[in-house]
Amino acid sequence: MSRFWSNTVRDISPYIPGEQPKDKKYIKLNTNENPYPPSQKVLDAINKATNYDLRLYPDPEASLLISTLARYYNVADGEVFAGNGSDEILAFCFPAFFNTGDVISFPEITYSFYPVYSDLFGLKYETIPLNEDYTVNIDGFPMNAKGILLANPNAPTGIALELRQIENLLQKHSDKLVIVDEAYVDFGAESAIPLIKDYENLLVVQTFSKSRSLAGLRIGYALGNKDLIEGLNRVKNSFNSYTLDRVAQQAAIAAVNDDKYFKTSCEKIIKTRHTTAQKLVELGFKVLPSKANFLFVSHNKICAKEFFLRLREDGILVRYFQIKGIDNFLRISIGTDEEMNILVHRLKVYVD
Amino acid sequence: MSRFWSNTVRDISPYIPGEQPKDKKYIKLNTNENPYPPSQKVLDAINKATNYDLRLYPDPEASLLISTLARYYNVADGEVFAGNGSDEILAFCFPAFFNTGDVISFPEITYSFYPVYSDLFGLKYETIPLNEDYTVNIDGFPMNAKGILLANPNAPTGIALELRQIENLLQKHSDKLVIVDEAYVDFGAESAIPLIKDYENLLVVQTFSKSRSLAGLRIGYALGNKDLIEGLNRVKNSFNSYTLDRVAQQAAIAAVNDDKYFKTSCEKIIKTRHTTAQKLVELGFKVLPSKANFLFVSHNKICAKEFFLRLREDGILVRYFQIKGIDNFLRISIGTDEEMNILVHRLKVYVD
Repeated sequence: MSRFWSNTVRDISPYIPGEQPKDKKYIKLNTNENPYPPSQKVLDAINKATNYDLRLYPDPEASLLISTLARYYNVADGEVFAGNGSDEILAFCFPAFFNTGDVISFPEITYSFYPVYSDLFGLKYETIPLNEDYTVNIDGFPMNAKGILLANPNAPTGIALELRQIENLLQKHSDKLVIVDEAYVDFGAESAIPLIKDYENLLVVQTFSKSRSLAGLRIGYALGNKDLIEGLNRVKNSFNSYTLDRVAQQAAIAAVNDDKYFKTSCEKIIKTRHTTAQKLVELGFKVLPSKANFLFVSHNKICAKEFFLRLREDGILVRYFQIKGIDNFLRISIGTDEEMNILVHRLKVYVD
Repeated sequence: MSRFWSNTVRDISPYIPGEQPKDKKYIKLNTNENPYPPSQKVLDAINKATNYDLRLYPDPEASLLISTLARYYNVADGEVFAGNGSDEILAFCFPAFFNTGDVISFPEITYSFYPVYSDLFGLKYETIPLNEDYTVNIDGFPMNAKGILLANPNAPTGIALELRQIENLLQKHSDKLVIVDEAYVDFGAESAIPLIKDYENLLVVQTFSKSRSLAGLRIGYALGNKDLIEGLNRVKNSFNSYTLDRVAQQAAIAAVNDDKYFKTSCEKIIKTRHTTAQKLVELGFKVLPSKANFLFVSHNKICAKEFFLRLREDGILVRYFQIKGIDNFLRISIGTDEEMNILVHRLKVYVD
């Protein structure tokens, strides 16, 4: 602690990302990375961008990436924002759309970065408990909040809301900004992007880190009506004009354009999720119905923490949260079929 | 304007970066980019990092880059912070070290992003006029400020303070955090980095964008005592855990390690700056004594704006600021000798 720290920095509890251990080679099923590499076309695009022009600033507006995304989602360029990962975009939303002291609401169990952003930017937050089946209680959001922040599918449960539920929420809370964080949407849930034309209170945030296998390059984007996007641009341009580097912009464009590769790898993950879930059920696990690239599971004989520690010892990393309400669950990212077979085999040894 | 905009976003005037025109090929002397490419070893490092591991998150702590920089500057790892460009690091300084309503002070003429950050984070700022010779009035900083922000060399004048002046400032204002933005320091000025061991109120911010020819990749870093660095890390980890991508981390490491290339290209730029300045003086320009990779010049026969417009028409971009006190100056980035010869030739035509 330094005498120069602000009150904010003194009081916040920063987010703790999943561990990236360096001690040995693990089967990494702990940070929801994609088990498949990015498209070869993405690697080619990076190689092409690795040239003398790196001495020059990138396009601060990322215009080509923006128009590529706009075309892909059939919206206008002005309805798209791009940033250094969806985390950065979510962070920008706070100063863009809320004033200090405003109340923002999100589920009690969700991406644990949301309360951290709220603290950093001086917002109050009101959390709503999940239903007993771990679904989001869509009717529970308070009327006095200024905004609603919702991961769909939710993390770490993986459970998705239906599009009509999102639409009902947008109608019921038409006076509030509703931010839908769709980091995991491509693995089987319905995106709310088609609703941005009809609901000016909707901002949808997505990422290249999961379904497009580019966690290593830090690219996220948001879609919403052009005034919301302009609000994000105003914050970005008051914070850091050049958030997306030359290489990342080119890689992202290539990733969007190789739609076939994208769809094929998403389908593979969905299939692996399905077969893994079945096998875990056979081993006596309770498996929440996931539309994400991970499974959220618990077992009534062995506690989650024990599974976590034993798996770690056996070279398999999964995520365990010491958080009330979910402290008997493991979050297991979907790896390759081979990785999941090894996992299932280990778990079978423990439960037998 | 959207009804969902915050008060901050409604009221701020975002920073406007130098233009990056797409209409035709210009000689670009407007954004202080390095005319020489990054080291071949940097390009090789990027190619090596362009592999299947891009599906995985980068090291959120950028440990290898941090230790490479620490070794280079002979400080401890805990005294180094890395971020997505020095702009991001400067932005992080505001919530890390100042409270809403605090006063921060900087020169009246300096990097025009400083007042933008202040507005975004709700700080008041007090500016101090330059001396008549355009040097920073080091004795002018107010005693009531909470912090001092200083570009050294200053932008857009290029004039540097001496190390003993910085040290005097640190002693006189030992109760304040002094942030020295050394974006341009490698072109002939003295860095304050050796002072971080003795002054816990000093934070030095540098960038890979200028002297290491990597504007396209967005990498900056800061050095200071470990409590200051921890403050920056707390903000980063409450904002975006993974600000530096895999490719940028590897590129930056290679750039630091190729010190010979770095020094050679800095020397070339210093030499070109010297000869260009002489030629401009011969053409009747007033040329401020620059220690940066740009020259700040004015002419008593033709006004700066006219030069700017005519040069633009002739395919040469320089920077012109419509700002009181410097609105008869041009900021000209140092290009290659060939580019500067073309520039001088054009200017000669105008003034003859």
